[in-house]
Amino acid sequence: TKTQKTPPKDETSINAQLLIKAGFVHKEMAGVYTYLPLGLRVLKNIEKIIREEINAIGGQELLMTTLQDPSLWKKSGRWSDKVVDNWFKTKLADGGEVGIANTHEEPLVALLNHHVSSYRDLPLFIYQFQTKFRNELRVKSGIMRSREFLMKDLYSFSRSEEEFKEFYETCAMAYERIFSRVGIGDKTYRTAASGGSFTPGLTDEFQTISSAGEDTIFVDKTKRLAVNKEVYTNEVVSALGLKKQDLVEEKAIEVGNIFPLGTKYSKALGFTYKNEKGEERPVVMGSYGIGLGRLMGTIVEVLSDEKGMVWPNTVAPFQAHLLALEGGEKEAKKVYDLLVKQRVEVLYDDRDASPGEKLADADLLGIPWRIVVSKKTVESNSIEVKQRSEEKVTLMPQKDLLSYIS
Amino acid sequence: TKTQKTPPKDETSINAQLLIKAGFVHKEMAGVYTYLPLGLRVLKNIEKIIREEINAIGGQELLMTTLQDPSLWKKSGRWSDKVVDNWFKTKLADGGEVGIANTHEEPLVALLNHHVSSYRDLPLFIYQFQTKFRNELRVKSGIMRSREFLMKDLYSFSRSEEEFKEFYETCAMAYERIFSRVGIGDKTYRTAASGGSFTPGLTDEFQTISSAGEDTIFVDKTKRLAVNKEVYTNEVVSALGLKKQDLVEEKAIEVGNIFPLGTKYSKALGFTYKNEKGEERPVVMGSYGIGLGRLMGTIVEVLSDEKGMVWPNTVAPFQAHLLALEGGEKEAKKVYDLLVKQRVEVLYDDRDASPGEKLADADLLGIPWRIVVSKKTVESNSIEVKQRSEEKVTLMPQKDLLSYIS
Repeated sequence: TKTQKTPPKDETSINAQLLIKAGFVHKEMAGVYTYLPLGLRVLKNIEKIIREEINAIGGQELLMTTLQDPSLWKKSGRWSDKVVDNWFKTKLADGGEVGIANTHEEPLVALLNHHVSSYRDLPLFIYQFQTKFRNELRVKSGIMRSREFLMKDLYSFSRSEEEFKEFYETCAMAYERIFSRVGIGDKTYRTAASGGSFTPGLTDEFQTISSAGEDTIFVDKTKRLAVNKEVYTNEVVSALGLKKQDLVEEKAIEVGNIFPLGTKYSKALGFTYKNEKGEERPVVMGSYGIGLGRLMGTIVEVLSDEKGMVWPNTVAPFQAHLLALEGGEKEAKKVYDLLVKQRVEVLYDDRDASPGEKLADADLLGIPWRIVVSKKTVESNSIEVKQRSEEKVTLMPQKDLLSYIS
Repeated sequence: TKTQKTPPKDETSINAQLLIKAGFVHKEMAGVYTYLPLGLRVLKNIEKIIREEINAIGGQELLMTTLQDPSLWKKSGRWSDKVVDNWFKTKLADGGEVGIANTHEEPLVALLNHHVSSYRDLPLFIYQFQTKFRNELRVKSGIMRSREFLMKDLYSFSRSEEEFKEFYETCAMAYERIFSRVGIGDKTYRTAASGGSFTPGLTDEFQTISSAGEDTIFVDKTKRLAVNKEVYTNEVVSALGLKKQDLVEEKAIEVGNIFPLGTKYSKALGFTYKNEKGEERPVVMGSYGIGLGRLMGTIVEVLSDEKGMVWPNTVAPFQAHLLALEGGEKEAKKVYDLLVKQRVEVLYDDRDASPGEKLADADLLGIPWRIVVSKKTVESNSIEVKQRSEEKVTLMPQKDLLSYIS
């Protein structure tokens, strides 16, 4: 891929401008983006972190389908375009409509009905990384709100309200670890929100402070809690143990949500289990989402500077960006071989381009470590190392490189 | 997930019957399958093997989109339902049709047009693992022919016919390694086929011998080459250096294909590069596909026996299946902890079920190593180990287990 000198004219969001300029994503049409090799590497790193944290709290991964049987959705009332206004629908060759999945509660409940009958089969925590399709009327936030996007959607199936609440808190903690690991933990707050019927402490969003945010929240930065404007009442604030005078108004991006589904879908689709006494009980559900593209876009929005993106080590497409400048080509190749041998993920810029161009691209791409080999560094028998997030440039003997960057 | 006693009535293929019975997949509707945790583990193992082999020959991975802009497809003439008869199409909320991708030549060519201008930018080998949607009128082969399926699609972009042919052969060898690694190498033959215009040695399928196959091929088992019935002429047979008397007729499943696209799409979409003399030349393309579900279904078709599936180590959902039978529960837990500690992927059957049920399920699931801990094995201070693919049952001291199975 190549970088572009000028940002795309039809994009207003910082994340889309930088990601397209840097060759991380390609716009297919409004709200529909291809992930190019660099962007896909970031997406996969984010996916890996989420998978590790969700597996660690007992999540079981599966992969549901995009094509959806309307009959299941008619049972819950969500097939109607009046109830769900962003369906994509299409037709089978042999007749009959099918949906293009925008979420997966109904098929998952129908599926689990084949595998759950007794209290011994519960609780279950099922998740997937699956593309969702939402027929949005307007899209202007780059990869943060797309018509087609990869989502981690987790669903909990519990025997009681109490058992559900326990997992709910476990998952909230996993979410905090996820946002911290991808580098936006300090700017991300657990935020009370509505999500249908509001119960304080039981419908939460995770909101990352950013001027690009579509939401307004009121934040207690000491207690690390926030309240979404939509439920910002005296009642809610005091129920959370907060005080209005401690709260600061901020724009924020919703990077995750966790909320109770109760027995809505299990009742609609007849999903019950037999308790210890042999009585049929509806399964108590919860739902927990993180949009991977949105999270990636948020990292760009929050951590970029005027020169370009600044990726945290944990999600960066490569750990090191090696630039061979004029007169350093031969030595650079040796450094490249060394890094590869030591399993450092390195992007090697050996293009026939000017030093200025290569340095600007390194800033734009935002890979954590920039390593420069030039005529100057060869003559002084050293290499130049700089962290993208720091101003300091260090010259060091080649032998010190690995221990320095690791 | 749970196993089922009776196979699904609406499935005729062995792969769907076994995979559904064993709880590896769940049928959402005809030709549309959810991958349950066990099935997804197999799919991911297959994906990993393919990714390794394609990266090794210089493939660069990206992730294109499902939603497709019709304008690109109109340029190549493939938007018309008369030309491509299995499109799913849908409509945007703000008007205008979009396609649900069945393949990705057009958008990839349009994308690369932004990144390729000179001969120095080529060759490129681009691939992805992406779901394809095909509006098939009839489906009856389980996960081998679905309406929605995961595919590795690789596209080569070369400067000349010669450069294309070189990669074509490189890719054919990578395909042979892939089919060998997933356990069906001995039954899989490179097969001359039509794929549009036929050039001997330049349009190949990889066909796996199986009674479930939809294709008929003529195989030279010594030379490990075959000819698809559709091009089975004296001319083709001799062009390949084969003799009709050496060929055996077989039913076979097409598990992969590789074929030239020439300059069809690059000309339709104006995709050119400047050669060393500064002349504009159309890019020469090739396409290389492997359906992951089809490959998984083929492994089931080819390697199962009357008791169930028999997974090769390389793609098995787990390496070991540990059964705690009556009187062995306490000791089994110790063996489980030992295996987990040693990073052996183990499925632990500690259900409250009969020995017969557990043993039958182990055969059905087909995990390579079955380890039984029962009252009998505890009394003899040993554990029972059996390979799914062998008849022999071995009793051994627990301390020998790890070296035996690794």
